[in-house]
Amino acid sequence: MIRLRIIDIIEKKRDGLSLDEQEIKYAIDGYVKGEIPDYQVSALLMAIYLKGMNDIEATHLTKAMLFSGETIDLSMIKGVKVDKHSTGGVGDKTTLVLGPLVASMGAKLAKLSGRGLGHTGGTLDKLESIEGCSIDLSPEHFIDQVNKINIAVSGQTASIVPADKLLYALRDVTGTVSSIPLIASSIMSKKLASGADIICLDVKIGGGAFMKTIEEGILLSRLMVAIGKGFNKKVFAILSGMDQPLGYAIGNRLEVKEAIDTLSGKGPQDLEELCSEIAAEMVFRGGLSSSKKEALALASANLKNGLALKKFYQFIEAQGGHIDNLDEFVKVRDVFPYRAKTAGLIARIDALSIGLASMRLGGGREIKEDVIDPMVGIVLKHKIGDKVSRGDVLCEVYANKPIDNEILSLLDQAFCFSEDIVKMPKVIEKIIG
Amino acid sequence: MIRLRIIDIIEKKRDGLSLDEQEIKYAIDGYVKGEIPDYQVSALLMAIYLKGMNDIEATHLTKAMLFSGETIDLSMIKGVKVDKHSTGGVGDKTTLVLGPLVASMGAKLAKLSGRGLGHTGGTLDKLESIEGCSIDLSPEHFIDQVNKINIAVSGQTASIVPADKLLYALRDVTGTVSSIPLIASSIMSKKLASGADIICLDVKIGGGAFMKTIEEGILLSRLMVAIGKGFNKKVFAILSGMDQPLGYAIGNRLEVKEAIDTLSGKGPQDLEELCSEIAAEMVFRGGLSSSKKEALALASANLKNGLALKKFYQFIEAQGGHIDNLDEFVKVRDVFPYRAKTAGLIARIDALSIGLASMRLGGGREIKEDVIDPMVGIVLKHKIGDKVSRGDVLCEVYANKPIDNEILSLLDQAFCFSEDIVKMPKVIEKIIG
Repeated sequence: MIRLRIIDIIEKKRDGLSLDEQEIKYAIDGYVKGEIPDYQVSALLMAIYLKGMNDIEATHLTKAMLFSGETIDLSMIKGVKVDKHSTGGVGDKTTLVLGPLVASMGAKLAKLSGRGLGHTGGTLDKLESIEGCSIDLSPEHFIDQVNKINIAVSGQTASIVPADKLLYALRDVTGTVSSIPLIASSIMSKKLASGADIICLDVKIGGGAFMKTIEEGILLSRLMVAIGKGFNKKVFAILSGMDQPLGYAIGNRLEVKEAIDTLSGKGPQDLEELCSEIAAEMVFRGGLSSSKKEALALASANLKNGLALKKFYQFIEAQGGHIDNLDEFVKVRDVFPYRAKTAGLIARIDALSIGLASMRLGGGREIKEDVIDPMVGIVLKHKIGDKVSRGDVLCEVYANKPIDNEILSLLDQAFCFSEDIVKMPKVIEKIIG
Repeated sequence: MIRLRIIDIIEKKRDGLSLDEQEIKYAIDGYVKGEIPDYQVSALLMAIYLKGMNDIEATHLTKAMLFSGETIDLSMIKGVKVDKHSTGGVGDKTTLVLGPLVASMGAKLAKLSGRGLGHTGGTLDKLESIEGCSIDLSPEHFIDQVNKINIAVSGQTASIVPADKLLYALRDVTGTVSSIPLIASSIMSKKLASGADIICLDVKIGGGAFMKTIEEGILLSRLMVAIGKGFNKKVFAILSGMDQPLGYAIGNRLEVKEAIDTLSGKGPQDLEELCSEIAAEMVFRGGLSSSKKEALALASANLKNGLALKKFYQFIEAQGGHIDNLDEFVKVRDVFPYRAKTAGLIARIDALSIGLASMRLGGGREIKEDVIDPMVGIVLKHKIGDKVSRGDVLCEVYANKPIDNEILSLLDQAFCFSEDIVKMPKVIEKIIG
């Protein structure tokens, strides 16, 4: 056997050649073991960023990352196991709606989730904003809960894909985050380690998202679907718009409340459409319904007949949480109306600015150590296409401390107006896979 | 003033944009101060490797490196101050010949030199192989000696261009050595810090050299000349062939002896031609002769009339060294004849293999801590174009320990034969600047 050297691997990728399975495994294993230093891996990451990776290389990279740690064995769960990943949006409470909905339709959602950082929120933070709700489930509790009620969400432990944690931290400080093969292998290694049979990738497109254009989103989606095929998993990607926040609410409890509204059949149209579509695709692809149309009808029925909502409360209770009085669920010192300074049609609501404003209110973390205020956030009063007059309330700001100029200036930036006809954004741009 | 961030600088170069003076200075200064970590600098180096740098960026990089440490003030030296840098060859004793020669012609050579590593030798190691010879001159001694006898060579201190030492060590392990702007700024920062008015860059082309092709050599030379112009220095590059070692001798004392032969007008033709050409260019460009032809004639005269040789002994003596008996200067346990295994015309003598064989004999360092045996080395008996019969001695191996199979196999690889007519390599391919 030839002795591999990291310097040769760096130079090979630098020169635009394809790396083979052994070389990729050597680099990842060596980095995780601490035998290959940061500065060599960052040079390799930059070479990958600039020279790319083909589908086969990205599959090898995913595999090497996947096997850098433990994988979850879901074989004790009977039935169709589904999982979902979002590339991160603002106001993205999809899991809170989709999970109970798809569980009410007979699929099993055994999901490991992450925390939010920066302008995007995390499912764990939203769940933990509910009194008593724990995301720290033992493997036995996790499996048992899915078998009993079809749904469980737990925090990702450090033993799952440790390579991704190391690589992501390094990419973050070396300008190598926005590389499609690196993003794809990061997402897919975690999803594959989590053991589901059917995986939905919710790829957000637009200003507040990683993928700025539909073309980039398609490239990323195709690559992730190809990687999934290499592991014999049913993987599909839904490209959804992020030219404005999803739904109206941004902020942890505000989003939980909006999820409950949606599960009661009274939620925002975009959120309901996205969740119903994903749930229907999962159920149909898993063979739990004979057509997509039938699956969509079932989703719609369960949102109206109370089954999805019932599943939500069952789920929260199983994780130790309780919501005693929904009217008292969100309580802040001050709700401040933010008003339009001009009249016109709303053309865009920059999700990044809204997300940053919510973070600055205390609703998100700037650094990992920040403590989140679950109550605060922003509730939009208008969305793209709405006609507003000067002085109309564009959004309400839920705050527990004085609103500073930076928050106001973020909100000023967020709303873009037009005098022309505004093209309404599609909720779902495309399904791939 | 805008606050700079290294991540923005990395991303800018990654995206193929030009960095400005402030950005380059911020990156280099931050790295030298230890405020920017290795892993960010290596990502930047890879981005520079793959996206390149224009002449202006390379000049800014040179400047930032130059001012990362101390510079040498040669203003106390009267006359035309010349300096030379070689990109590193095998059997390259040019400085030992050129220095005394150009000093005998009236120019002032105040040179800081480096040690050899790997297959290439270093001037300091060759000087130190002479009994008593010191390369550790105080700044006063150094300046004083040049004023008195026109020549001094001293070791480069750590205070000169510390950025280059750090960057070179990082490039070496991250696959970013062979980048033309990085090579050019490394060489030019050190030469500019050394304070001469006229700088000759001896750019080696061929198998044993950094630059494998004449095209690469031209690109590097043009860039270094452009950087020199930016600092108002007279810089020219001589592209010289390294398809075989320079001269016949490889090894420290063996090379000193060949230098003495050359200074006595009895040296190898290629070495004499290269040194005479550089000396004549320096003297003519420095205004010490009215034409290049006149300068060449003076060089030739001084090699024959003993003036260059006298200057050599004066130089060695000023540095504390002495050679009592030239016949006893090289003494080894064994001189082993290495014979041709086939007949034919010698088409190429791979300088890399010869250099590595000499290193393995103990004549060079594999790692920085290795101690050099000054006596050992290789003396070629034939060069490119010679016709040899099977069993002819191709070279003599000067050894103080048994010759192992690796040395023999390096020598087997070194000599390439041809049955056709062999094109004789040019000593000087091109002069640029």
